[in-house]
Amino acid sequence: MEKYKSLREQAYEANMEILHQKLAIYTFGNVSAIDRASGVVAIKPSGVPYADLRPEDMVLVDLDNKVLEGNKRPSSDTKTHTLLYRNFETIGGVCHTHSTYAVAWAQAMLAIPNLGTTHADHLVAAIPVTEVMSDEMISGDYEHETGNQILNVFKKHNLSPEEVEMVLVACHGPFTWGKDADKAVYNATVLEELAKMAYLTLQINPSTPTIKQTLIDKHYFRKHGKDAYYGQSGY
Amino acid sequence: MEKYKSLREQAYEANMEILHQKLAIYTFGNVSAIDRASGVVAIKPSGVPYADLRPEDMVLVDLDNKVLEGNKRPSSDTKTHTLLYRNFETIGGVCHTHSTYAVAWAQAMLAIPNLGTTHADHLVAAIPVTEVMSDEMISGDYEHETGNQILNVFKKHNLSPEEVEMVLVACHGPFTWGKDADKAVYNATVLEELAKMAYLTLQINPSTPTIKQTLIDKHYFRKHGKDAYYGQSGY
Amino acid sequence: MEKYKSLREQAYEANMEILHQKLAIYTFGNVSAIDRASGVVAIKPSGVPYADLRPEDMVLVDLDNKVLEGNKRPSSDTKTHTLLYRNFETIGGVCHTHSTYAVAWAQAMLAIPNLGTTHADHLVAAIPVTEVMSDEMISGDYEHETGNQILNVFKKHNLSPEEVEMVLVACHGPFTWGKDADKAVYNATVLEELAKMAYLTLQINPSTPTIKQTLIDKHYFRKHGKDAYYGQSGY
Amino acid sequence: MEKYKSLREQAYEANMEILHQKLAIYTFGNVSAIDRASGVVAIKPSGVPYADLRPEDMVLVDLDNKVLEGNKRPSSDTKTHTLLYRNFETIGGVCHTHSTYAVAWAQAMLAIPNLGTTHADHLVAAIPVTEVMSDEMISGDYEHETGNQILNVFKKHNLSPEEVEMVLVACHGPFTWGKDADKAVYNATVLEELAKMAYLTLQINPSTPTIKQTLIDKHYFRKHGKDAYYGQSGY
Repeated sequence: MEKYKSLREQAYEANMEILHQKLAIYTFGNVSAIDRASGVVAIKPSGVPYADLRPEDMVLVDLDNKVLEGNKRPSSDTKTHTLLYRNFETIGGVCHTHSTYAVAWAQAMLAIPNLGTTHADHLVAAIPVTEVMSDEMISGDYEHETGNQILNVFKKHNLSPEEVEMVLVACHGPFTWGKDADKAVYNATVLEELAKMAYLTLQINPSTPTIKQTLIDKHYFRKHGKDAYYGQSGY
Repeated sequence: MEKYKSLREQAYEANMEILHQKLAIYTFGNVSAIDRASGVVAIKPSGVPYADLRPEDMVLVDLDNKVLEGNKRPSSDTKTHTLLYRNFETIGGVCHTHSTYAVAWAQAMLAIPNLGTTHADHLVAAIPVTEVMSDEMISGDYEHETGNQILNVFKKHNLSPEEVEMVLVACHGPFTWGKDADKAVYNATVLEELAKMAYLTLQINPSTPTIKQTLIDKHYFRKHGKDAYYGQSGY
Repeated sequence: MEKYKSLREQAYEANMEILHQKLAIYTFGNVSAIDRASGVVAIKPSGVPYADLRPEDMVLVDLDNKVLEGNKRPSSDTKTHTLLYRNFETIGGVCHTHSTYAVAWAQAMLAIPNLGTTHADHLVAAIPVTEVMSDEMISGDYEHETGNQILNVFKKHNLSPEEVEMVLVACHGPFTWGKDADKAVYNATVLEELAKMAYLTLQINPSTPTIKQTLIDKHYFRKHGKDAYYGQSGY
Repeated sequence: MEKYKSLREQAYEANMEILHQKLAIYTFGNVSAIDRASGVVAIKPSGVPYADLRPEDMVLVDLDNKVLEGNKRPSSDTKTHTLLYRNFETIGGVCHTHSTYAVAWAQAMLAIPNLGTTHADHLVAAIPVTEVMSDEMISGDYEHETGNQILNVFKKHNLSPEEVEMVLVACHGPFTWGKDADKAVYNATVLEELAKMAYLTLQINPSTPTIKQTLIDKHYFRKHGKDAYYGQSGY
């Protein structure tokens, strides 16, 4: 499947960025990239250390989790990735890390409140946290249900996956996504920074309120949407 | 405008120092440098990652925010920079970062108290924090009003921009300045360190008092003013 | 004893990994590797900085702590290592560090609770902490008694050294082990990360509960045991 | 003064170690080395960034603070160094840093309690903190009085400078010393690590007690004094 060489390389580069941005140690975490035309997904193999990873190790799977190519077993979280691709139809990459501060918020089972413009530059809402899974879901098709918990929290709060490109899975850690695999890892780095800033802010002043809606909108919409004036066209 | 080559290089080097000192990630933050004779300002282009930045990308603007030269859009914070240059007449560089501990204090909407000689070596006062902006200011000329909020807090506390070269914009983050762009980034690094030291100090002992005025004066005036005996002439 | 060259090299590489993973400074910490066929252990010499360490500096001792080869004195913690090898019969390497967050929990004399799936990926139980030693044990054969305290806490909580490959010695710091010296250091790195995550989680929400048993079992058994589906065979 | 070339190099290398160990930023901090036979001290010049420092920049002063050689002004803290050399007669190097966690304890005006064996490996006592200086001392010969405050706290608690090689100056930061300049910087690095460990321990459990005297003695005396069995002779 020489035609997916570029897809595997995208997925490989994005996975290595997890290491460079120090978002996980050893084998923790995984990134995938999708080719929407064919529905083919390239994903990190399960349990391979970043230091040993090569582009040709990326496993190709379809949206039903069937392995199309690769000598290695795909990430154990593959079913979560594919469920997100099937339901969030505009996304091109998914990233899962165990970055320290984001995991701490996920373990504390709390959404990360929007406390400043660094957060508002990226999303309007709090960073949502899923419900804790029921025993039935855990003992059932666990990784598929992990994806369902993400869909549920987006439905419950009426969130759009184009506006909110990150989530905390309770007791576990962050999943992020974006138009491509690079953007998904960018969002994972931003999420870790927002998680640390919110942590420190609430340590300094535990009753810090969420910022005003006008300020949130100002920052979000100067970077996103038709009236955006941040950045360069083409970036 | 070959004559501004050195100004663009100053601004470029100072922007890259934000990356080297880890004061911001990706495209966050920006530094400018001014040529006071001509009123020309060189500033980072909006939304360009530090890793991709080149000296020739620096955008030249005048003090009325008109672009004089450059293929790229200037930083979205340009109006804050130029307002500071127009009102703080002795400064030669302005720096804005999203450094983690300084942002946490800004989000907590608290001034950073002077708790030790590291702080007193650089400024006598607490590091001021602006008021939260009104909805009218946010919906109006936002980046211009950000500058106004800085001027207001300096007026309110009767601070001199030569003595206090740093401020926190509430819910947002730090702005710093100095005799040139290098000094502005130096102050951003020092501010981040002071923000972290004050954070830890108050975690250890929440009722730590501000240090004595005599000690503040001793440290500040051994480094600044006519009786200074710290450092070498020419540094 | 040319035949133990590979054992010394294993121990050397594992000791250097303490430095690379920043698990200790200067001379703190030590790793050993055992050749089970002969009962020969290669261990770091006492008080030698990592920067100066060479493979040939590793000291060979037997399970009764007798030096078999080496110009240098073995680690002062040797008796703790050999007691663990004698009692935990399947382990091939032992690691002791002074990593910052793990030491903090050991000094606080608290077990690290299982608060999330990063923890459950590695062990089911809380990371145990030993009792504080009696004055008699301290004044007696101290390093041997350190090992005894580890055995005691495993006995008390009915823990298996194959399932729980890490422990905190109260007022002191972490010991970890594994099938070989590399795995022992891997566990030391993981323990430090779990210690930091648990610290941050409880700072965010001091009443965060331990995660559900079903979730613990799901994560532990997808990586360990006969039904594991994480990773590649041969890794 | 070619004969002091080696002394200047010792002082230079020790100063650069402050940078490598990240114990201070820019120009903060300073180290000196003494030649006891002649009473000549080599010390960092005032206000010179580490990045620009060269061995020949080290300033030679005598124990009365008179400059013997050097084009640059010596560290503004020189009088603190020389007072320590005059009163602590066995020390060969002095180090002053603004390392973050040690400064936080100094600003909180609290001694760092002995909470574990990492601390006990280096000193028996809590790391002492001086009294806050009176206005008269601050306005008088400030740097000399800084040294006096250190002597006072050692006198008050009956501490030996050979056993306790580190102190916190209240509202300011740490001073450390040792048999030579290298050992002084080693102690500064260890102090920063102990400060961080104690900080985290008390965040986890604010009522963590000091460790038992028997355990302190065991760890201290296995590394120090005539019955020591840690390390190699010659290290």
